[in-house]
Amino acid sequence: MSAACIFCKIIKGDIPSFKLFESDKVFAFLDIQPLSRGHALVIPKFHGAKLTDIPDEYLTEVLPVAKKVAQISGAENFNVLQNNGRIAHQVVDHVHFHMIPKPSQSDSEGLVIGWPAQATDMDKLKALHEELKAKM
Amino acid sequence: MSAACIFCKIIKGDIPSFKLFESDKVFAFLDIQPLSRGHALVIPKFHGAKLTDIPDEYLTEVLPVAKKVAQISGAENFNVLQNNGRIAHQVVDHVHFHMIPKPSQSDSEGLVIGWPAQATDMDKLKALHEELKAKM
Repeated sequence: MSAACIFCKIIKGDIPSFKLFESDKVFAFLDIQPLSRGHALVIPKFHGAKLTDIPDEYLTEVLPVAKKVAQISGAENFNVLQNNGRIAHQVVDHVHFHMIPKPSQSDSEGLVIGWPAQATDMDKLKALHEELKAKM
Repeated sequence: MSAACIFCKIIKGDIPSFKLFESDKVFAFLDIQPLSRGHALVIPKFHGAKLTDIPDEYLTEVLPVAKKVAQISGAENFNVLQNNGRIAHQVVDHVHFHMIPKPSQSDSEGLVIGWPAQATDMDKLKALHEELKAKM
């Protein structure tokens, strides 16, 4: 836990939150600046800025809880998003998974996504695959 | 497994893929229309369109594998994204988690995010919280 971290303070109860769920590894609560009705956050009870900083045992329960939070929201369409780094849209440096209902196609509510897909380049992919497999 | 599903075919090996990891519950491979170098997918070996369709035991390993895939990609900044439903940008109806490196601030590579945050409305949040807690 980090004394300066707003999410660690929420976990400890030093800052109030609209808590939905808590276990020994995970905490879930409503986002107070929601993108849509039911926008919730699921966070590990381990302080770390990026996914790569969190021990596996604090990650295993996150998606089952995100699933449960999606179910109770009643959302038919939704996004699960976790951002790592400022240029990847991360604001609070404690890993958090957004569950964001997408009630309509409108860009005025829910997550708005841009998708600059690259053309398939089999030679580049094959070389990258060899490089990454060696590190796996 | 679904006979018509392209990701089920990839899991079975009927369609080739740039596989990075496989266990009895999870499969990871490179996206062949990447948003950026190292864009990978982690999928449960259970056919279901939305997160809410997947049994918990097929979800627990997903984030540890996404973490590993992020680590080997070398990405400092990245997004983890899972879309549910057409209007939430889902294209293939088999749950998949994108690990998308964000190498620069440019909208021409990596995930592009729009964030139409609503103003905090404590009364609405309090009522919603009561409603959701009762369903949890």
